[in-house]
Amino acid sequence: MTGDDSSWSGPGPEEEAERAARSALTQILEPGDEKGGRWLREVGARGLLGLLMSDACEKGALPGLTERRAAGLRARAAGVLPGQRLEAIRALGGRFVVPGDTEWPTQLDDLGDARPIGLWVRGRPDLRAWALRSVAVVGARACTPYGAHISASLASGLAERGWVVVSGAAFGVDAAAHRGALAAGGATVAVLACGVDVAYPPAHQELIKRMVQQGLVIGELPPGAHPTQSRFVLRNRVIAALTRGTVVVEAEYRSGSLVTARRAQQLGRFTMGVPGPVTSGLSAGVHELLRGGAVLVTDAAEVVEQVGDMGELAPERTGPVLPRDLLGPGTRRVLEALPAGRPVTCRESARLAGTTDDEALGRLYELHSLGFVERCPEGWRLTHSAIRGSNARRGDA
Amino acid sequence: MTGDDSSWSGPGPEEEAERAARSALTQILEPGDEKGGRWLREVGARGLLGLLMSDACEKGALPGLTERRAAGLRARAAGVLPGQRLEAIRALGGRFVVPGDTEWPTQLDDLGDARPIGLWVRGRPDLRAWALRSVAVVGARACTPYGAHISASLASGLAERGWVVVSGAAFGVDAAAHRGALAAGGATVAVLACGVDVAYPPAHQELIKRMVQQGLVIGELPPGAHPTQSRFVLRNRVIAALTRGTVVVEAEYRSGSLVTARRAQQLGRFTMGVPGPVTSGLSAGVHELLRGGAVLVTDAAEVVEQVGDMGELAPERTGPVLPRDLLGPGTRRVLEALPAGRPVTCRESARLAGTTDDEALGRLYELHSLGFVERCPEGWRLTHSAIRGSNARRGDA
Repeated sequence: MTGDDSSWSGPGPEEEAERAARSALTQILEPGDEKGGRWLREVGARGLLGLLMSDACEKGALPGLTERRAAGLRARAAGVLPGQRLEAIRALGGRFVVPGDTEWPTQLDDLGDARPIGLWVRGRPDLRAWALRSVAVVGARACTPYGAHISASLASGLAERGWVVVSGAAFGVDAAAHRGALAAGGATVAVLACGVDVAYPPAHQELIKRMVQQGLVIGELPPGAHPTQSRFVLRNRVIAALTRGTVVVEAEYRSGSLVTARRAQQLGRFTMGVPGPVTSGLSAGVHELLRGGAVLVTDAAEVVEQVGDMGELAPERTGPVLPRDLLGPGTRRVLEALPAGRPVTCRESARLAGTTDDEALGRLYELHSLGFVERCPEGWRLTHSAIRGSNARRGDA
Repeated sequence: MTGDDSSWSGPGPEEEAERAARSALTQILEPGDEKGGRWLREVGARGLLGLLMSDACEKGALPGLTERRAAGLRARAAGVLPGQRLEAIRALGGRFVVPGDTEWPTQLDDLGDARPIGLWVRGRPDLRAWALRSVAVVGARACTPYGAHISASLASGLAERGWVVVSGAAFGVDAAAHRGALAAGGATVAVLACGVDVAYPPAHQELIKRMVQQGLVIGELPPGAHPTQSRFVLRNRVIAALTRGTVVVEAEYRSGSLVTARRAQQLGRFTMGVPGPVTSGLSAGVHELLRGGAVLVTDAAEVVEQVGDMGELAPERTGPVLPRDLLGPGTRRVLEALPAGRPVTCRESARLAGTTDDEALGRLYELHSLGFVERCPEGWRLTHSAIRGSNARRGDA
């Protein structure tokens, strides 16, 4: 299932050539470029990269390509060495995930031609499995102590319920959310508006490093890329599309967090807001959102009540969504080491499976998303249907 | 239009006998007694009073009357001197308003058999006209400084927009709302759970006195009656039914304010809540209400946006709802003294009409409800349709 399972039968040379072309395209096209997304869909990654890197890149060579735009693309393409950034991400222990990969979170396809060309990923867990049970917690950078407190306790509560907390690694609400999830020994994903090797803001270098170890750090921009204002704004659509719902904790009128929330609404995701004093300008944006139809939430249980409609209940009812033979070997190892009769802590699960705590945590959240395990006050335990499935298999053998 | 316009042709002796019987019944039946309301509907006030005061008051004499209940009613009826409380309210300068009176707020009929038997009223303004453009502001007695501040500023803002603020004269949110309206030179109505001559809580004696002068103090219980726990709860249904909408400012789980709000919701009134910090137990009830479908409001403009759907816009569109010849003489005097070309303050309107400030204020709010005048930053002015109506009349003469 995951990128670091080297024994897992990988994609063929065709797919690898396509991946290399897409990785180069992330150096040329900006995130969310819908015209670029259309070209990519129409001529394929290799075709598009070849064209952009050739003398044929001129007005009219692609639908809607102007001379001015062509010149800009030629200039960007001139500096690209295909395959170079793929080597850089491998050196970082990361990977570049593209549509068609088993790890690709297909909910991003809801973005249409604004779908990311690919995602640069650092961290062990399987992004697709984690994203299935994830909630975005976003809000103001210059939040109040109230906002920081709410963000952290919401994130802790979500992590304790087996939900993955997604945010943007910014100051304020974002950082409090990531830290709240980490502090609860939970799962968290940072979606950066720069390369996944660039710590932005620099003060969050340690936080981002910790997320690489315990969670996931992802982004659309290739290693080495720096954030810009428009990249921050466009990054928000990835947060909105990736998660089952977005919670806004504190936000002023017309803030970036509201953009994320409205985007989530447009994409049919759950949109929620935590109220605050009406005398606080930092709650004004949230109240506006709540007046516009977002759901008022006051704690993690209420968030899960919303987003859990399918993610929470369906696996319980229908059993695991994947046969266990299709799990990656690392994930299967953690699953098979779980005792059937009692819950275990993450640490005990790691010991039983002979792996590290961080590795076990990632696998447990994946197994949770897939319906094999569930969280309980004591830690983690197999679901009834996972136990039944296992017994059935033994009976067959 | 109003009770103190002695020149206004009043009801006949039949109606007065019915009124006297109803006044005595408020001494016997508790507020909101639906069975009592049904008896009243079926045998009339004089019939019911006669029966309750006679030896015929026993099991089976009325539908569903048990022996135990009959004994209780007989005991209560024994202490009643018909007409006595009517004299008491007249001595206080007040009145007893019953269904069928022009001052009866017919929206109370939505309460069905739990409709008040009558309303004891102190204060100059016409209750029916004021209630047409009224909003209830309710909440916790033990509110926080935040709640008190919000309540007062909401009430001031509503008063400035020409809306009447209704509340229960209790400590906390209620008192802040009344004071906010009074401070803005606005209109406010206290609905008491005791006699309108009883200052409860005693610390609010001055506040209630001020409301008698500048606004209205009303209640279902006859002069001299004291509040009980159940009377507080049942009073809330009158607040809910009388107003176009209810705003809850701060409320704990399972509080009386939530009862008022839910009653308002059941009655098809607008139900609103002001959010607060999710860390505050005093906002928890409001947040629960908001999650249950009440509308989140953060200021008076948003409240008026809700409740104004008809009350705010309709009179502007359709013109005054009453021909001016049907206005009471006191109200007509204030209307006719208003200059057509410019706005006036309340004080100037009083001077022009040769009356007191409090009297003029009451009339202006009545005229506002009826679509003759509107509020503006400078004070009050005639609406376009009132000016047109006046010109048409002059043209006819």
